[in-house]
Amino acid sequence: MHFSKDRIAALEKHTRTHFINSLSGFKSANLIGTQDLQGNTNLAIVSSVIHLGAHPPLVGMIMRPHSVPRHTFENIIETGIYTINQVNSDIYQQAHQTSARYAKDESEFDATGLKTEYLNDFKAPFVAQSRLKYAVKFVENQHLAVNGTELVIGEIMDVYVDESALQSDGFLDLQAIDTVAVTGLDSYHTANKLNRLPYAKK
Amino acid sequence: MHFSKDRIAALEKHTRTHFINSLSGFKSANLIGTQDLQGNTNLAIVSSVIHLGAHPPLVGMIMRPHSVPRHTFENIIETGIYTINQVNSDIYQQAHQTSARYAKDESEFDATGLKTEYLNDFKAPFVAQSRLKYAVKFVENQHLAVNGTELVIGEIMDVYVDESALQSDGFLDLQAIDTVAVTGLDSYHTANKLNRLPYAKK
Repeated sequence: MHFSKDRIAALEKHTRTHFINSLSGFKSANLIGTQDLQGNTNLAIVSSVIHLGAHPPLVGMIMRPHSVPRHTFENIIETGIYTINQVNSDIYQQAHQTSARYAKDESEFDATGLKTEYLNDFKAPFVAQSRLKYAVKFVENQHLAVNGTELVIGEIMDVYVDESALQSDGFLDLQAIDTVAVTGLDSYHTANKLNRLPYAKK
Repeated sequence: MHFSKDRIAALEKHTRTHFINSLSGFKSANLIGTQDLQGNTNLAIVSSVIHLGAHPPLVGMIMRPHSVPRHTFENIIETGIYTINQVNSDIYQQAHQTSARYAKDESEFDATGLKTEYLNDFKAPFVAQSRLKYAVKFVENQHLAVNGTELVIGEIMDVYVDESALQSDGFLDLQAIDTVAVTGLDSYHTANKLNRLPYAKK
């Protein structure tokens, strides 16, 4: 089936949102943990976390400052730190619920039953139920004028991972810890491994 | 298990690369089709394609200009167009093979057996075997000085998708067309659907 640019533009707005959100393929499911300077905690599911580089270890995410995760963005700018917590199949429904429009003084932790955890004096909250999570120090944000979003770039600090995921070459087996993937806006999936492939040579 | 920043920095370089590449979660698997002004085609697997917005329909990807997909980046800058083709389980091995260091006048299409397809006079090649693919017009690139990568931003033009994926609300069922996800550098996965969840409300 062929959808021209004009046909896409003519789709009903929510239909177009679902359609375009499906095009990029599988997305990661992560919960971003923050708190403001008064200690109010915030938790937001984000499907736009992306690997930026390993040397130094950097991670990015796209945020819409005027949409639901705006408190997350504000807390990151205010405190300079956040946590990234992979979502697993035991908590994906609670993780999805964090996308509801809670007020800034309502904690998504309390609202969903996800538990805060504080590790090694890092001032942003982790999600206790997550099996792979890490502390992140804010580096910079790049404003994408083309549509008003922000690319938030952070440096990976301390990593906490269930031992069952760790393999001898550094690879982490995300299936072993039931990490989920997202498609579109609202579909959650676990994974079936096909294979690991060797480094490609001519 | 706890990996401090210092412990991560002390990992052997390839171990650290595998480890850090695993942290962002599931990644999309896409082939980027381009050609230069002389008509030499190029195809590169990229795991960093990311949804940027639906209104207008924008897609981003992170490229390292000095790594394997540099010909792709050069062709995009030169011609202003490219295609994004989702990888499915029938072609993931050929897709992975495009990451080998072919010269600019060697086409990864010829080397891997993936077939070029030209649709509606768009001058960049699609992958015939892909079941969800779209034409993209280059909008801009943002240089990320923090590690020398580029965020390449494009506008989604024409979309081609197998009818079996399309659902009535615009959502595309990527499992129905066997789209694969990537973890780390080299692990490929199909998906098991858990559920689609309703729009979250307080």
